[in-house]
Amino acid sequence: MLHQLHDLSEDGASRAVIASLIGAREPGHMLPAGLYTRADVFEADLDIIFHQHWMAVAVEADVPEAGDVYAVDIGRSSIVIVRDEEETVRAFHNVCSHRGSRLVQAGRSIVGKLVCPYHQWAYELTGDLFSAPHMGQDFNKGLHHLKPVALRNVGGILYACLSDTPPADIDELDRVMAPRLAAYDLANTRIAYETDIVENGNWKLVIENNRECYHCEANHPELCVSYFATDFGFDPADLSPSEKAEAEALADRYARQTAAWEEAGLPSAAVEHTVGVATNFRTQRLIIAGAGESQTPDARAACQIPLGTVGKGTGDTHLWGINSWNHMMGDHAVVITMFPLGPDKTLVRTKWLVHKDAVEGVDYDLETLTSVWLATNQQDADLVALAQQGVQSAGFRPGPYSRFTEKQLDDFITWYVERMSAHGYGR
Amino acid sequence: MLHQLHDLSEDGASRAVIASLIGAREPGHMLPAGLYTRADVFEADLDIIFHQHWMAVAVEADVPEAGDVYAVDIGRSSIVIVRDEEETVRAFHNVCSHRGSRLVQAGRSIVGKLVCPYHQWAYELTGDLFSAPHMGQDFNKGLHHLKPVALRNVGGILYACLSDTPPADIDELDRVMAPRLAAYDLANTRIAYETDIVENGNWKLVIENNRECYHCEANHPELCVSYFATDFGFDPADLSPSEKAEAEALADRYARQTAAWEEAGLPSAAVEHTVGVATNFRTQRLIIAGAGESQTPDARAACQIPLGTVGKGTGDTHLWGINSWNHMMGDHAVVITMFPLGPDKTLVRTKWLVHKDAVEGVDYDLETLTSVWLATNQQDADLVALAQQGVQSAGFRPGPYSRFTEKQLDDFITWYVERMSAHGYGR
Amino acid sequence: MLHQLHDLSEDGASRAVIASLIGAREPGHMLPAGLYTRADVFEADLDIIFHQHWMAVAVEADVPEAGDVYAVDIGRSSIVIVRDEEETVRAFHNVCSHRGSRLVQAGRSIVGKLVCPYHQWAYELTGDLFSAPHMGQDFNKGLHHLKPVALRNVGGILYACLSDTPPADIDELDRVMAPRLAAYDLANTRIAYETDIVENGNWKLVIENNRECYHCEANHPELCVSYFATDFGFDPADLSPSEKAEAEALADRYARQTAAWEEAGLPSAAVEHTVGVATNFRTQRLIIAGAGESQTPDARAACQIPLGTVGKGTGDTHLWGINSWNHMMGDHAVVITMFPLGPDKTLVRTKWLVHKDAVEGVDYDLETLTSVWLATNQQDADLVALAQQGVQSAGFRPGPYSRFTEKQLDDFITWYVERMSAHGYGR
Repeated sequence: MLHQLHDLSEDGASRAVIASLIGAREPGHMLPAGLYTRADVFEADLDIIFHQHWMAVAVEADVPEAGDVYAVDIGRSSIVIVRDEEETVRAFHNVCSHRGSRLVQAGRSIVGKLVCPYHQWAYELTGDLFSAPHMGQDFNKGLHHLKPVALRNVGGILYACLSDTPPADIDELDRVMAPRLAAYDLANTRIAYETDIVENGNWKLVIENNRECYHCEANHPELCVSYFATDFGFDPADLSPSEKAEAEALADRYARQTAAWEEAGLPSAAVEHTVGVATNFRTQRLIIAGAGESQTPDARAACQIPLGTVGKGTGDTHLWGINSWNHMMGDHAVVITMFPLGPDKTLVRTKWLVHKDAVEGVDYDLETLTSVWLATNQQDADLVALAQQGVQSAGFRPGPYSRFTEKQLDDFITWYVERMSAHGYGR
Repeated sequence: MLHQLHDLSEDGASRAVIASLIGAREPGHMLPAGLYTRADVFEADLDIIFHQHWMAVAVEADVPEAGDVYAVDIGRSSIVIVRDEEETVRAFHNVCSHRGSRLVQAGRSIVGKLVCPYHQWAYELTGDLFSAPHMGQDFNKGLHHLKPVALRNVGGILYACLSDTPPADIDELDRVMAPRLAAYDLANTRIAYETDIVENGNWKLVIENNRECYHCEANHPELCVSYFATDFGFDPADLSPSEKAEAEALADRYARQTAAWEEAGLPSAAVEHTVGVATNFRTQRLIIAGAGESQTPDARAACQIPLGTVGKGTGDTHLWGINSWNHMMGDHAVVITMFPLGPDKTLVRTKWLVHKDAVEGVDYDLETLTSVWLATNQQDADLVALAQQGVQSAGFRPGPYSRFTEKQLDDFITWYVERMSAHGYGR
Repeated sequence: MLHQLHDLSEDGASRAVIASLIGAREPGHMLPAGLYTRADVFEADLDIIFHQHWMAVAVEADVPEAGDVYAVDIGRSSIVIVRDEEETVRAFHNVCSHRGSRLVQAGRSIVGKLVCPYHQWAYELTGDLFSAPHMGQDFNKGLHHLKPVALRNVGGILYACLSDTPPADIDELDRVMAPRLAAYDLANTRIAYETDIVENGNWKLVIENNRECYHCEANHPELCVSYFATDFGFDPADLSPSEKAEAEALADRYARQTAAWEEAGLPSAAVEHTVGVATNFRTQRLIIAGAGESQTPDARAACQIPLGTVGKGTGDTHLWGINSWNHMMGDHAVVITMFPLGPDKTLVRTKWLVHKDAVEGVDYDLETLTSVWLATNQQDADLVALAQQGVQSAGFRPGPYSRFTEKQLDDFITWYVERMSAHGYGR
């Protein structure tokens, strides 16, 4: 689409270089350096990954009532999510149909109509253009509706896709996750806390960091209280006899616990929908380590009011998506989304959800609720910055992933190569 | 010119993309998005619009006396305007002929000769190289004159063109404006105040914002005291009966007042030289609303000493140019110039001129003089930032201009397309 | 190497433009403007000049003892210099062989092994991979050695080359400089002070500034106490009779002094290895002006403990390299290196070395030691910024060098053109 040509990435020469880099990736290894550093790759990633795929953008708690508006930026684009008067949650491009002005600033607000600050074009929360002064009596308002954005509510997590032809396999995400998320009743949660941090690395390095716990033991002391660093793999030959015994005990426990949960009607087994698909995700109900209740400093519940109908001892329903990672626990949920800001800058947004009736200072202590992931995110940000410095270096060679601890990265990068290839950046 | 090849915009691939974007503009609509956002378009705009056309750069009050020097940046270039010992105002590239060092920093200074700080090459205010140490006895100083820049003084406003072949129709600007500006005697004014602000938008969005008052009513309460928001058009069908009656009364008043002014020897009728020309401008003597004297908080004169020979009740001679907008009133003038700093950054420079004998605190109060445009500029900066955010978005489509209120934008964008096409970016 | 393709400079179109600019340089003149300003030229300069040539990166005093580690950035790359347990000084890319993480941050540290902070891969100081957890029993650690970087210790100054095929004529630098530097015994010095400043100009303008003293008299009052501004040339016809007499006296003095020094076994005559070679350098033993001892405010020694075996009155062994300039004097040495940060940003790093036993406040006063070059560097930074502003201007034309005072610049720029041409950017 010519009028969208913001940059050189759609030029032939640039496209050929990117396609060569995509094609040069060796299985089991990182991507060629340029894919983490080039400005035109950043643009291509926006065009293909972030504009053509389903992105986790919000939670229902961002727009709990009719008239609530939540604007979120995806790269240089912005969408506005609204709950209209019929309680339908909708999404639109946050762009006036007249001169393109952003309608509402990022964040939350409450409105009757969406009124553009520039020339007061006013839109209904359904997106219909209500009034457009001075455009003439022959002006067809029906042609200037806000441009809708595809939106899916999967158990309280809102996914949007900027494309006019969004991938159909969002249905698969919904099929798997809706039953798993139902018990948490995320629609009746409240955002207890929210932070945005900017990591100094390419978004793919942010995801590579997220898709393994190989780095956890040495880097995440707070998280490791409630998290088994071996949950996402280990080399059995690398463990001491006592570690080996522990690992075997954990494997046994997982087998028994998963069966017990499933029997109790709690879907728990791992589902991987990561390679050969458009809408990449993985879920599994994880056992929480230590006291076993929640990702807090002592692994006990931070909030005294449980989420939905889940009880204690129901573990951690983890969910990884293209641009998100989530942990739903008995007492609270942590929803993390990630949006690229530049070749070497990525926004990481974390929301801590508690039951909507939970009162800070009474039902939960905010520091107890948030401290593990506040620490973990900062530690990850530091690691991602080191990785970015590395891929920018002349001495960088795409290194090998461990088949024991980094299989999920390998799959994610394979997925990335597939998606870029499918959208014109293939050999 | 190969040695000027600062960027990729002169490369074939980039040129072809820009030409396609230029060619894709639909009449009556904004430009394709990339023309507001791409780095190579910014470079092409510098090369074509800002280097090949006449730009308003200064006023005579910037260099009132012999030896006065005023340096102004145009994009990444800089020119130096000097008043030489014969009182001739001249302009040169602010670049030493030796190693290219900038000769004087932006702003005003007073010198005998222009001496380069690097190796003390010294130039006369005529641009002649006076001395160049250590260059050898056979060195031909005549070949190393400062490179002159075309300069025209149109009634006290100084226009420069960086091209060696500046557009000839500066004569038309002079023919129309010299008689209109004469009465204001801008040569005998003083800069009472000056501000630079950086707007977070492409320079074309700054101009689009400036070429309509459709946004004034909702955004510029201070300006609307003295300005008729309908001055630049309205849809009669959009007015209430009382607004309609007002509009008709104003139209009548304009017809009578313009005739009266013209009869009194004050050129007042609108002149538009905007499409199909190189040196885009529009002028008209506008009626000042309210108390009718000046663009101040109460529409009364801010300065007790009138400009030149204009009396009270002579309205506001507005003048729009490629990179400037100006209001000459009975008591003061506001001269605004605009220079691009990047694809999404534009400098807006405002000068308030009063009679050279006017004394602050005695003849005028500075806050009264400046507050309307200080507020208006900031409001416009906010709107331009919203528009830039919009054009960067995936959801942007070039929207339609109102034929009633945005005809001047349409003409400006048409002019832009014409000029780029004429300089090699056409289909 | 495809996986290193960080940017467009390796694309055909960009390469052709750069080659044209290289080819357009006229002898005796500056480079075409784009070579000082374009982003792709910056990338090409990194690839060719900074990655394929020997760069001064450190001094032995940066890693005085076994286990000492010093990391230095070259453009976006980083290398780590270590002194291993056998006292061998080695260099490696500062990039983990696993996921590319930077191993150590820029600056000095002391380690037993180099342990990557990301996943605890541990390397010996010989670069051997000692351990890599969870990579499997079949993982061949021998294939994942740290990637070595060519390193040469030339009389205590450490030169590195990122290329696998470093230029052989580092031997010539060593042949000339090792005997000259031996007497200073730089291995037994200590870094008394170190500063990094960022100059707002292209690295080639930093070098152009450094390769002449034409600008010294008007800009460097502190340096000129101990430095003859005419040391690097002057136009005899430009001198007053008394200046001429002085210049002749200095020439005589140089002839006698150089002969005397050489006779005393102190190599002193100028050696230029600047054009038609890969490893550009120039050296000469210079006479120190004034009190004749050192580059200090009064030209007397700042440190009471001499360097090595050099006595008083042995002048200043100056050494210019591709990215460095150095002054070795009887009482201290000043080692300056320069690394490009962007098209218009360059890091200048200065180290003041004194005998390792010298004690601040006892044997030397820090301000006396450092003040001349602190002032000189800042003055040069200001001049480089002016030159960068100039080359960015539309009015810039590559000016002529003085054959008397700027021959060394001409040679450096000729060398640059040769090197770029030799590496694929030629006609």
